[in-house]
Amino acid sequence: MHAAGDVRIETVPDARVVEPTDALVRVTRAAICGSDLWPYKSMEPSENGRRMGHEFIGVVEDAGAEVRTVKAGDLVVAPFLWSDGTCDLCRQGLQSSCLHGGRYGADGVDGGQGEAVRVPQADGTLVGLPVGEDDALMPSLLTLSDVMSTGHHAALSARVGPGATVAVVGDGAVGLCGVIAARRLGAEQVIVLGRHPDRIALAREFGATDVVGERGDEAVERVRELTGGLGAHSVLECVGLGQAAGTALQIVRPGGAVGRVGVPQDGTLPLPVATFFDNVTIGGGPAPARAYIEELLPDVLEGRIDPGRVFDRTGGLDDVPDGYRAMNDRESIKVMVTP
Amino acid sequence: MHAAGDVRIETVPDARVVEPTDALVRVTRAAICGSDLWPYKSMEPSENGRRMGHEFIGVVEDAGAEVRTVKAGDLVVAPFLWSDGTCDLCRQGLQSSCLHGGRYGADGVDGGQGEAVRVPQADGTLVGLPVGEDDALMPSLLTLSDVMSTGHHAALSARVGPGATVAVVGDGAVGLCGVIAARRLGAEQVIVLGRHPDRIALAREFGATDVVGERGDEAVERVRELTGGLGAHSVLECVGLGQAAGTALQIVRPGGAVGRVGVPQDGTLPLPVATFFDNVTIGGGPAPARAYIEELLPDVLEGRIDPGRVFDRTGGLDDVPDGYRAMNDRESIKVMVTP
Repeated sequence: MHAAGDVRIETVPDARVVEPTDALVRVTRAAICGSDLWPYKSMEPSENGRRMGHEFIGVVEDAGAEVRTVKAGDLVVAPFLWSDGTCDLCRQGLQSSCLHGGRYGADGVDGGQGEAVRVPQADGTLVGLPVGEDDALMPSLLTLSDVMSTGHHAALSARVGPGATVAVVGDGAVGLCGVIAARRLGAEQVIVLGRHPDRIALAREFGATDVVGERGDEAVERVRELTGGLGAHSVLECVGLGQAAGTALQIVRPGGAVGRVGVPQDGTLPLPVATFFDNVTIGGGPAPARAYIEELLPDVLEGRIDPGRVFDRTGGLDDVPDGYRAMNDRESIKVMVTP
Repeated sequence: MHAAGDVRIETVPDARVVEPTDALVRVTRAAICGSDLWPYKSMEPSENGRRMGHEFIGVVEDAGAEVRTVKAGDLVVAPFLWSDGTCDLCRQGLQSSCLHGGRYGADGVDGGQGEAVRVPQADGTLVGLPVGEDDALMPSLLTLSDVMSTGHHAALSARVGPGATVAVVGDGAVGLCGVIAARRLGAEQVIVLGRHPDRIALAREFGATDVVGERGDEAVERVRELTGGLGAHSVLECVGLGQAAGTALQIVRPGGAVGRVGVPQDGTLPLPVATFFDNVTIGGGPAPARAYIEELLPDVLEGRIDPGRVFDRTGGLDDVPDGYRAMNDRESIKVMVTP
């Protein structure tokens, strides 16, 4: 990406193993993320551009001498951040804050929207998949790298439990996966706040029980009506804008929790005093997808969840620029890339 | 209290049972709360004044026709808010948000710093004590009404668990009870941020392992040094000022939690974006003391915790104005009143 709205497919030097802990992964499936749309909307022009993409599945082509858990030929899914798996924070399950980890597309590491990626800390990062590279489950397996893991993190951070009343702010791919996650954790009522007919229809298929198309104060009032006046036990904030976070804080029930996973676009979040008096808990952040891949994988493999349905468009690498446009224009919920 | 600094002992009409769910409690022990000091510092002059006090133990003198769980002659402890015990929020254990509850010293309900109190919703509110009214445990039992329950709430909201590294912001009575609560829940390292020698000495006796006397950025740096650079798993914010909350957010470890129990004096709390990227959880609010009294009572009765040591001054009703002054001047940690 060279600037807002300016995505180009370019030829770069081949990815290769550099460190003994690296793996070289040939990408078989990648995705465009809702968070990729923030720079697509606002990035300042950049001389060298920025490599994009952090959700991918691929085949290991080469591995450094110290790599133990994957080998050439293995099909693997990569979480959207790489991590060593051994530091204090990884060991507590927060691989997204790994002390020696990092992002794709930065600091000499390739982006996932490409033919191949040098994956640092391969042992701590990659998870092997027990299927062939063109398995029908590929879309759902690909969501584990980010969007489904992020929806799950929203639900856990919002403390969804059996019988809970849940509100999901946002009907993008993360919100939709939040619906799946909330149901999977036993939520009884799942209210989606959104207004795009295609997304809402999918939300209902994923188990949403109510839809609120209003925004702002009207949305707050409507959610209160749907929850006996008290608000939702658990609110999943899957947007990242200040207004969405503000709505989330207003529709949560006393004693309830808001799980934030939308990357904050408006800086500091002001916590109203009411959140204190109502004993509202605010949690969330970047999902430790590395931990959740292992947790969610059996549900995908055994067909209990089908998050791959969030992909409604597929294209090759050359289609990536138009994929950004389509997602930004809300023509597409989420785009899968087959390099 | 008629204005900042103006506390008077006045004769008012006798408290009596009004509603069939009321109990009339003759107060045998009461306390001055750190939160009483906020109006003591800043209250605008008021024509009729404001009745004060919300922490008390007493003997039931009379009970309305519908009261079932307490009767005349029973010694009871009152949580700092009254609650019906039957609404949706009480049943989920959040009696501090009872849909039909309220505060002492407001709306026709007496304050606890007096001879007697009409306690609404007596069945939902009062907890019987299996001791005599002059039992040596009285100071510790009295802390269950607020300060010890509040320290416990801070620790739970900060998700203290076995082996945790805990930081307690504030060395007032709540912070000191937070130290007890953190140890009780299994914390291994307990760092207290405070600088009053008498309070720090007591904190150490309650199990604090480290003391940080610095403030602001220096305090943040010192806590990081004490925690291997990462910060504390659990931070108990026991002050209520914006600066204290800001410090709390800076000394918590990625993936950790801040439990707030200091009543916010500076309005909205700005949550820095770093709390998102670090997956920090923020919780807390007014403690559901009604729930915690039952949980903590055995530990007090059996001598496992001794929170009554936060009381370092005792006086009669006439001593209450000077008790406020002494606490405000930091001459006293906490004052017990024997009407």
